[in-house]
Amino acid sequence: MTELIAAVDAVDVRFPTSRELDGSDALNPEPDYSATYVTVRTSSGQEGFGLAFTVGRGNEITVAAVRSLAPLVVGLPVAEVLADLGAFSARLTRDSQLRWLGPEKGVIHMAAAAVVNAVWDLRARRAGKPVWQLLADLSPEELVSLVDFRYIADALTPGQALAILRAAEPGRAQRRAKLLEDGYPAYTTTPGWLGYTDDKLVRLAKEAVADGFGQIKLKVGVDPAADERRLRLARAALGPDVRIAVDANQAWGVEQAIEWLRRLAPYDPYWIEEPTSPDDVLGHAAIRRAVAPIRVATGEHVHNLVMFKQLLQAGAVDVLQLDASRVAGVTENVAILLLAAKFGVPVCPHAGGVGLCEMVQHLAMFDYVAVSGTTEDRVIEYIDHLHEHFVDPVRIRAGHYLAPTEPGLGARMRPESVARFAFPDGLEWTVAAAG
Amino acid sequence: MTELIAAVDAVDVRFPTSRELDGSDALNPEPDYSATYVTVRTSSGQEGFGLAFTVGRGNEITVAAVRSLAPLVVGLPVAEVLADLGAFSARLTRDSQLRWLGPEKGVIHMAAAAVVNAVWDLRARRAGKPVWQLLADLSPEELVSLVDFRYIADALTPGQALAILRAAEPGRAQRRAKLLEDGYPAYTTTPGWLGYTDDKLVRLAKEAVADGFGQIKLKVGVDPAADERRLRLARAALGPDVRIAVDANQAWGVEQAIEWLRRLAPYDPYWIEEPTSPDDVLGHAAIRRAVAPIRVATGEHVHNLVMFKQLLQAGAVDVLQLDASRVAGVTENVAILLLAAKFGVPVCPHAGGVGLCEMVQHLAMFDYVAVSGTTEDRVIEYIDHLHEHFVDPVRIRAGHYLAPTEPGLGARMRPESVARFAFPDGLEWTVAAAG
Repeated sequence: MTELIAAVDAVDVRFPTSRELDGSDALNPEPDYSATYVTVRTSSGQEGFGLAFTVGRGNEITVAAVRSLAPLVVGLPVAEVLADLGAFSARLTRDSQLRWLGPEKGVIHMAAAAVVNAVWDLRARRAGKPVWQLLADLSPEELVSLVDFRYIADALTPGQALAILRAAEPGRAQRRAKLLEDGYPAYTTTPGWLGYTDDKLVRLAKEAVADGFGQIKLKVGVDPAADERRLRLARAALGPDVRIAVDANQAWGVEQAIEWLRRLAPYDPYWIEEPTSPDDVLGHAAIRRAVAPIRVATGEHVHNLVMFKQLLQAGAVDVLQLDASRVAGVTENVAILLLAAKFGVPVCPHAGGVGLCEMVQHLAMFDYVAVSGTTEDRVIEYIDHLHEHFVDPVRIRAGHYLAPTEPGLGARMRPESVARFAFPDGLEWTVAAAG
Repeated sequence: MTELIAAVDAVDVRFPTSRELDGSDALNPEPDYSATYVTVRTSSGQEGFGLAFTVGRGNEITVAAVRSLAPLVVGLPVAEVLADLGAFSARLTRDSQLRWLGPEKGVIHMAAAAVVNAVWDLRARRAGKPVWQLLADLSPEELVSLVDFRYIADALTPGQALAILRAAEPGRAQRRAKLLEDGYPAYTTTPGWLGYTDDKLVRLAKEAVADGFGQIKLKVGVDPAADERRLRLARAALGPDVRIAVDANQAWGVEQAIEWLRRLAPYDPYWIEEPTSPDDVLGHAAIRRAVAPIRVATGEHVHNLVMFKQLLQAGAVDVLQLDASRVAGVTENVAILLLAAKFGVPVCPHAGGVGLCEMVQHLAMFDYVAVSGTTEDRVIEYIDHLHEHFVDPVRIRAGHYLAPTEPGLGARMRPESVARFAFPDGLEWTVAAAG
């Protein structure tokens, strides 16, 4: 009997991170890091796991959106789905009625991300490989077939994508061996949350460098005097050779960003992340021109490959920060990695949140082995919380992500964590409500 | 006792338009025109009505999103809300957790639109005025206070907005009188759906002109030969003086759009609407440069004022087509009208759907009376279906929208229509399911 996709389940999982002010930034003063956690189950009982990350309220909407996508998926033959994940992604993002809710943005696109990621996880588990390796073992032609070129062909043609991948082919084996040996460079945002005291900031910054990180990141954007003070303290504590990025989380208008950064420039911030609205391609380009040599970085809220295309075409970014579940999952991220390679812009994935570290490492490692072929000026964000809820948590050594060796995408959560933090009926929330 | 907002109700209303192929276009072959229909109720029993338009599947997600927004609204003092609708809109769009689902785009923003529109309707009903008149009676200072300048101040400052409104102030009374006399020019899309035969297209096109319309619109983008034939037939039937716009509904890539339009150019299309992804500001600019003098129009899927700002900054559009419920309702549309006026680009609102004609006429008429001060090269889209479900349907005479005189925004639906077309439990759908 043909194996079919039998079920697409979604659970609303929330962690009460706002109680400790972990994750506090200019626009997210009190996030409860959450996941729209998806399990895809086949008629033979195999499973794949994916998620979309949110920050609390509204996670119920992405859960509802996954349930609305499920009828497009349930009943499909598994072998056909896994053999053409480009077509599968298009099935979710091009549905003629559901695309009205985007197109390819916001809730409906994040829900598609969770489902697409779960299906990639399923494919990798069946292949017995981590996703980075699954991708890096595909031929250039197979990889190109994943890309939806409709709206990006003016910036990247199938032929150009193929040429990029073929050029990287000879070095795949050597880079794979190096990756398994050394891991992939990371930076850490752990010291830099706005809610932390100066003492805690300095202590954690020093610890990060002692742990082997060559870059840290501080949140900014609420109070210019405090930002200047915190950056000065961090720079004094770490010296001139450690890269210190700053992240405004969209707090500013274009001119305000330029003004604020002039004040921080003496302390040599490495990049400014999300200086303004993630939609403002032209605004990022204007800021970049004005604040160089400070690099401009964005991506965690950039909603699809059409926006990334324009950020690259406009020369608006020095650093492209793809996200595992903002765009439609692994499939769309393969296209984004190819666009970045075409324009020669380094990709430094956004992570943290819930399960983002676990997922994005696969994309960065695939990029290294089979696309850009380098880790120069490339780092994956790392934040040290919530990993204990994952079956295959990331492994960090000396400021590097060690390459995952377990099959899958890494998004599988421990069943006891899902049960405890399910909202609003898990024990964590019923006890809080009672207390 | 202080009057409070007591309830925010949302109903999933769907019309089975796919049965007749009304509304069929390149990317929407079989839409079921739908509304996330919102009623805001105060503790004294007053009501306001708003909606977000969708095309069927997924309407349940915007309904869920309205229910997620409701706790931000219920319990607020009515007088305070109505006195500062700028702050009220920001309350919905800037919520620190919910904004992760956008920010300001897609499902969560459309849900905000429905709620914001309902509250504007409430305010206008209490004032005993149609919304266009309520807006046109506000002072320039009151209007400027509605605008969220954070991400647009590099293109439009509060001072510049004030100057635009003050310049239009002296002629308000005269234009209002003229509007009440003549109405506002319209164009019709009724003849041009892709699912119609050539004979039906020609017959309806001739009827439209006989009814007084100076512009019609044809859907294109699936088959170049058919598009050429249909445009040729329409041009032959109507002669050189009737404007015939074409609408690709995002079907093309940038280069494909340019190629396709070269083939249609001999038949003098007035504008090309949605040639490519609504997110592609730079792509629209490239298309516009290549296809002039054919005008480029877009907006129904442009998700917020940051995107409109860039379309204007990049010189990407000749015609700005705002939508009543894609951006966050009347409040955000006031900002978009001011941006368009600053750049001298005519606004021709997107309508059709469910209740969009009823709502957008208020915005265009306000623009005429108090912002741009002209109707030159400005037309409101008109489509002749589903108006019978509204309590105050649009009135068309000789190709013009007559100015509404009833209080409110026009989105109030007839209770019997809401009951019959409620999905999935209304009679229309239970009978279809049974049959």
